[in-house]
Amino acid sequence: MQGILDEIVGHVAPLCRQGEVASYIPSLGEVSPDKFGICVAMADGEIYGAGDWQEPFSIQSISKVFSLALVMSYDYDSIWRRVFREPSGTPFNSMIQLEADRGIPRNPFINAGALVVTDRLLTLTGDASVSIRGLLRLESGNPSVDIDAVVAASEADHGHRNASMAHLLASYGNLENSVDDVLASYFRQCALSMSCEDLAKASLFLARHGVAAGGTPFLSRNQSKRVNAVMLTCGTYDAAGEFAYRVGLPGKSGVGGGIVAIVPGRCSITVWGPSLGPNGNSMAGIAALDEFTARTGWSIF
Amino acid sequence: MQGILDEIVGHVAPLCRQGEVASYIPSLGEVSPDKFGICVAMADGEIYGAGDWQEPFSIQSISKVFSLALVMSYDYDSIWRRVFREPSGTPFNSMIQLEADRGIPRNPFINAGALVVTDRLLTLTGDASVSIRGLLRLESGNPSVDIDAVVAASEADHGHRNASMAHLLASYGNLENSVDDVLASYFRQCALSMSCEDLAKASLFLARHGVAAGGTPFLSRNQSKRVNAVMLTCGTYDAAGEFAYRVGLPGKSGVGGGIVAIVPGRCSITVWGPSLGPNGNSMAGIAALDEFTARTGWSIF
Amino acid sequence: MQGILDEIVGHVAPLCRQGEVASYIPSLGEVSPDKFGICVAMADGEIYGAGDWQEPFSIQSISKVFSLALVMSYDYDSIWRRVFREPSGTPFNSMIQLEADRGIPRNPFINAGALVVTDRLLTLTGDASVSIRGLLRLESGNPSVDIDAVVAASEADHGHRNASMAHLLASYGNLENSVDDVLASYFRQCALSMSCEDLAKASLFLARHGVAAGGTPFLSRNQSKRVNAVMLTCGTYDAAGEFAYRVGLPGKSGVGGGIVAIVPGRCSITVWGPSLGPNGNSMAGIAALDEFTARTGWSIF
Amino acid sequence: MQGILDEIVGHVAPLCRQGEVASYIPSLGEVSPDKFGICVAMADGEIYGAGDWQEPFSIQSISKVFSLALVMSYDYDSIWRRVFREPSGTPFNSMIQLEADRGIPRNPFINAGALVVTDRLLTLTGDASVSIRGLLRLESGNPSVDIDAVVAASEADHGHRNASMAHLLASYGNLENSVDDVLASYFRQCALSMSCEDLAKASLFLARHGVAAGGTPFLSRNQSKRVNAVMLTCGTYDAAGEFAYRVGLPGKSGVGGGIVAIVPGRCSITVWGPSLGPNGNSMAGIAALDEFTARTGWSIF
Repeated sequence: MQGILDEIVGHVAPLCRQGEVASYIPSLGEVSPDKFGICVAMADGEIYGAGDWQEPFSIQSISKVFSLALVMSYDYDSIWRRVFREPSGTPFNSMIQLEADRGIPRNPFINAGALVVTDRLLTLTGDASVSIRGLLRLESGNPSVDIDAVVAASEADHGHRNASMAHLLASYGNLENSVDDVLASYFRQCALSMSCEDLAKASLFLARHGVAAGGTPFLSRNQSKRVNAVMLTCGTYDAAGEFAYRVGLPGKSGVGGGIVAIVPGRCSITVWGPSLGPNGNSMAGIAALDEFTARTGWSIF
Repeated sequence: MQGILDEIVGHVAPLCRQGEVASYIPSLGEVSPDKFGICVAMADGEIYGAGDWQEPFSIQSISKVFSLALVMSYDYDSIWRRVFREPSGTPFNSMIQLEADRGIPRNPFINAGALVVTDRLLTLTGDASVSIRGLLRLESGNPSVDIDAVVAASEADHGHRNASMAHLLASYGNLENSVDDVLASYFRQCALSMSCEDLAKASLFLARHGVAAGGTPFLSRNQSKRVNAVMLTCGTYDAAGEFAYRVGLPGKSGVGGGIVAIVPGRCSITVWGPSLGPNGNSMAGIAALDEFTARTGWSIF
Repeated sequence: MQGILDEIVGHVAPLCRQGEVASYIPSLGEVSPDKFGICVAMADGEIYGAGDWQEPFSIQSISKVFSLALVMSYDYDSIWRRVFREPSGTPFNSMIQLEADRGIPRNPFINAGALVVTDRLLTLTGDASVSIRGLLRLESGNPSVDIDAVVAASEADHGHRNASMAHLLASYGNLENSVDDVLASYFRQCALSMSCEDLAKASLFLARHGVAAGGTPFLSRNQSKRVNAVMLTCGTYDAAGEFAYRVGLPGKSGVGGGIVAIVPGRCSITVWGPSLGPNGNSMAGIAALDEFTARTGWSIF
Repeated sequence: MQGILDEIVGHVAPLCRQGEVASYIPSLGEVSPDKFGICVAMADGEIYGAGDWQEPFSIQSISKVFSLALVMSYDYDSIWRRVFREPSGTPFNSMIQLEADRGIPRNPFINAGALVVTDRLLTLTGDASVSIRGLLRLESGNPSVDIDAVVAASEADHGHRNASMAHLLASYGNLENSVDDVLASYFRQCALSMSCEDLAKASLFLARHGVAAGGTPFLSRNQSKRVNAVMLTCGTYDAAGEFAYRVGLPGKSGVGGGIVAIVPGRCSITVWGPSLGPNGNSMAGIAALDEFTARTGWSIF
């Protein structure tokens, strides 16, 4: 395994200079495109890593997996009255779908859907980003996992599009908290900073049918299956079909260049490469996962 | 296993009268909504069935799995220059996407995409529906699998929408054969008549990583994985996310009320119940698959 | 003329109870649906009125004509770099078009376009709603024309949809002022309260090829022609074709139930009936204008 | 008047080489872009012309005005149950609107709407293109006005997009005749060949409130007004707002480069310049009409 990861790091290096680093907020744009890390956390606890796998990066939309899991852990199924679970078929930040569906976002992994999940979590816990951070610290075993205040402030400064979506959700009555509170919480959860190692450990419960790091169930087996299903169909914006075709695993990406993928029953895998392809997913990261599944034969199909 | 199937048949019976039997062509509308069959074909050859599992029905869009597999078996990857593999996010027969994407259908399982696949198969084999029938006879071991001429003629009589799509594809230069030839072939493949048993056996190669009934590879392991991935993300019209969430398996449905689902490495499952829900999938069929995966624990997630 | 107006008031009375009074803000919903007024202001200064023609109502979107005229009076043509002048073809408050056109609203009479015009007027004058009020007082000769503070506050309380649009415009860089300032100014201009008489006098410059009440040009002949052209093609939401077909005059409606129509070179006509049809236009008002043009033969076609 | 026309011909000459001559059918693409003609037919019968005003060209979509007028002359208002009269807001040959509106085209001047009008005319007269030709011969006073058989055949050879639309209309039950018959008739009416002089004379009834060349009413005053209203809001594809703003007259264009415009009560004007702008309207033609209305002051606004 270690050998495979080391070779993958070598193979994807030339891809790091293709695509473009997200620059809609300044602090994301400053990250070097040459960074690349990969980490595999096995269900039995073994950890393998290569490249910049212990360097923290901004997890951005990957946080949506954890906010969804948290809401489901509190409140099983009621969230699905406020958000669908179908692929969006349109660019990841589009408002067209939201209007056609009268305020019900297409799924919890597009921004509009994630705002609804954050809103629900805010009601359930009083502080959505703090509860997500708590989960991530506990599962990763790293108490220094934290929100990058500079990134969070920068998100807020460039957040007109998310503000537009939050107001549209509110106009349809699909927010329980104020627009300002939901946005603040959302910007903070996106600004969480973690390494590939942290993220692989923190998402391992999805490979262990819901069982948390401490050995107790965080989600039921059925809930864990369902989060993975939503990741597979909706986790990589409007390239979900392509990701399933090439990689063949449930996965969730973020514009910081990270991707989490799950081999149910076996392991979680995280990759990080800041340079993004046209659909907003890490180019080196997808190539790495493609090679990883090809060489291990680990696919759900 | 036999016990599970027998119980499922009992449990879903009340659902058979919900929803509506497809009636856009008269011969489909005449089928009794009380019919229900289920069949499981294990990778090692064992077969289990219950209800009306040996009664033939019109496979309709399920034929799209076999036409895609055939084209990939001849021509590996070139079909993907003419059709995408992303979920459509819109009702199954919509032309909006096709126009926005300038004649490239969203995936091979919506009608527009299936017309392109049929067109390619027509070029490769000279007769698309005959080659599909040949594959189905061989894999099912049933030489009497055939095209229902009445249904085929009825499809043609009510085929303005498919004709509209074929002309639109032609206007973008995305057909190699004449509109009339492609439509005739397409209507014939949709009119194939098979039982749950036939279909479960015929699709078993997708559960055996591409290995055909005779023990030789029909598709490569990688191709088989990829057909399953497209089924999972695009196989049940715009309810693919819901199907993944509830059932958790790659599957393909047809308006005749049939559904094929695959447990990679383990088995294929077919269900048949003519009455359809709002997204065009068999209501009793989806409930049966839901119960089946819940009781066996067989899910890819 | 007076006889025609009196008869029209009688004829449209039964229509006042059809349709629905706008109720998205409480103060609009409290207006009696039985109100109906009509006023004709001739180019030479004669005034005719019937029904509730001297009772003030909330002019709402009719204010968009005056903000556009004001911006054109300061700044001739530069506004057209930030807003198109094509009919929208979609419901009046849709955001779909705005996103497809990357932040350039379809025309200045849909809400998104009016926000851009208000934003420009804010830059040009320092206070958009005050400058519109000034124009209306001057042209109507009624110094008591004013903003209804209760309505303005109510608009702000129910303004999530306009806030969503303003943030979307800002995300595309199409606002010069802050979202909050633009919204506050926009809500105030919509809350202007005027009678049919006030409005007919205030819009008379559009029937006099741009010449203001005092006899001096407010707009050039060419500018006046162009405002009328935009009213004809875009003035009645997505019922502009229907309005042109039935009434045959440039016109602008508001959800308060008012409509202003122009017979170039001859007169301005205002009607008011609070109950709205499916496209958001006063049902009694449109019927009244239809009868008026049929009986006078005054149409631009 | 003659002097104005002569000068306009000189002024627009440089524009003839901008834009592009329509080339989707070969015979249109062969026309020289340097051609330009203009003709004014006064309501009292006087005729003025300049440039290539007596040279025949393919009238294409301008024929839609005459088919609509003919249907209204037979059948007053019933056509409006099968086609709307709202601006389309989308490119002229889009099918998106048609699907969203379940087979009711947005207006009679987009292709889908014109197919419905032709279908109705076919039912009413037995031969739509022959009846249009008859009207045009009578009104122009030129018995040699005819259908260009080469152009008609060429339209049919490149007609997949219109065929797609006709089948879609048929799928919604909005055709009374066979798809093939409607298309053949439609292609023939588009292939009518006329000069600016012929067209100006033939459309003069719209400037004379419906009165035909022989002095008797062809349309009622009200019908004539209504055809002009539809021309203004829908006559120049998705540039109707721009045309109203710049020219300020009801008008209808064709991809052959012709435009007909009406000054109600006063005259009809035709221009012809084969090179088209991005919205499919003659660039030189629109510039000529812009200058004509600016210099004469003839505008409906």
